[in-house]
Amino acid sequence: MFTPRPIGFVNSPYASTDQVPKGLGAQHSAEGTLEILPEFAAGLQDIEGFSHLFVLWVFDRSGRCELTGSPPCDDRTHGVFATRSPFRPNPIGLTVVELLGREGLLLRVRGVDMLNRTPILDIKPYLSGVAPELLRRGWLAEAEERNRGKRPRT
Amino acid sequence: MFTPRPIGFVNSPYASTDQVPKGLGAQHSAEGTLEILPEFAAGLQDIEGFSHLFVLWVFDRSGRCELTGSPPCDDRTHGVFATRSPFRPNPIGLTVVELLGREGLLLRVRGVDMLNRTPILDIKPYLSGVAPELLRRGWLAEAEERNRGKRPRT
Repeated sequence: MFTPRPIGFVNSPYASTDQVPKGLGAQHSAEGTLEILPEFAAGLQDIEGFSHLFVLWVFDRSGRCELTGSPPCDDRTHGVFATRSPFRPNPIGLTVVELLGREGLLLRVRGVDMLNRTPILDIKPYLSGVAPELLRRGWLAEAEERNRGKRPRT
Repeated sequence: MFTPRPIGFVNSPYASTDQVPKGLGAQHSAEGTLEILPEFAAGLQDIEGFSHLFVLWVFDRSGRCELTGSPPCDDRTHGVFATRSPFRPNPIGLTVVELLGREGLLLRVRGVDMLNRTPILDIKPYLSGVAPELLRRGWLAEAEERNRGKRPRT
């Protein structure tokens, strides 16, 4: 396999996981920066031309693996590969961010959901999406449906 | 960081990189299977409900890192983080596949672009995309534009 090494770190407004918006309808509009290490600067050439990026990063504070679990938005359990749970066999996170601008080694982005100082493994251009009419979202769509039927808790 | 371990392997029709469709307009419609290791079976619970999956995998036969390079579809160089090059600081690949069906530990999928027996690191549900009208594709859109002006080589 390989030995993971950080290419940089996320600067985000979130110091702990309870501050990160989670669950159904969570909006990820927080701004932050991706701070790339100087030795990887050349790898950023032409990145400014992309509006959206995939960021691969490490759940460096999750510390365990659980093959099934209940996500914040559902009271039923699901397999880890059917959720975005941090407790994964390989603790790798994936976030799509909007690239707002670049100043040297700093990429200003919108949509961060990582904790502050999260190690970044990779950045890739986001090139295309799946058309919404072709997308099925499994248990998540069902949980949303059930949730719509509930009165808001007071 | 962490020590990567395979959760399974890709069965694909591609034995070598020159067989994988690459470059502008490349179609990834090849079918294959994601063969999950028995110890991770519980993690697949409810995965059948999703139409599309992110697959994170290892470029296990790439063997080097190049911070800049020319992709197959362009004669100009770009930074590795602005391309899908296999020669990355952390050799992790990302592919969106369509889930056609599941038979136990085997996920039948469409859209594989990995070599046969590529180690899989993670599978995540694909939940939403960026609206096409919001997407900018940088040097790739420019390369496509230049390419459209060229006569086909004979």
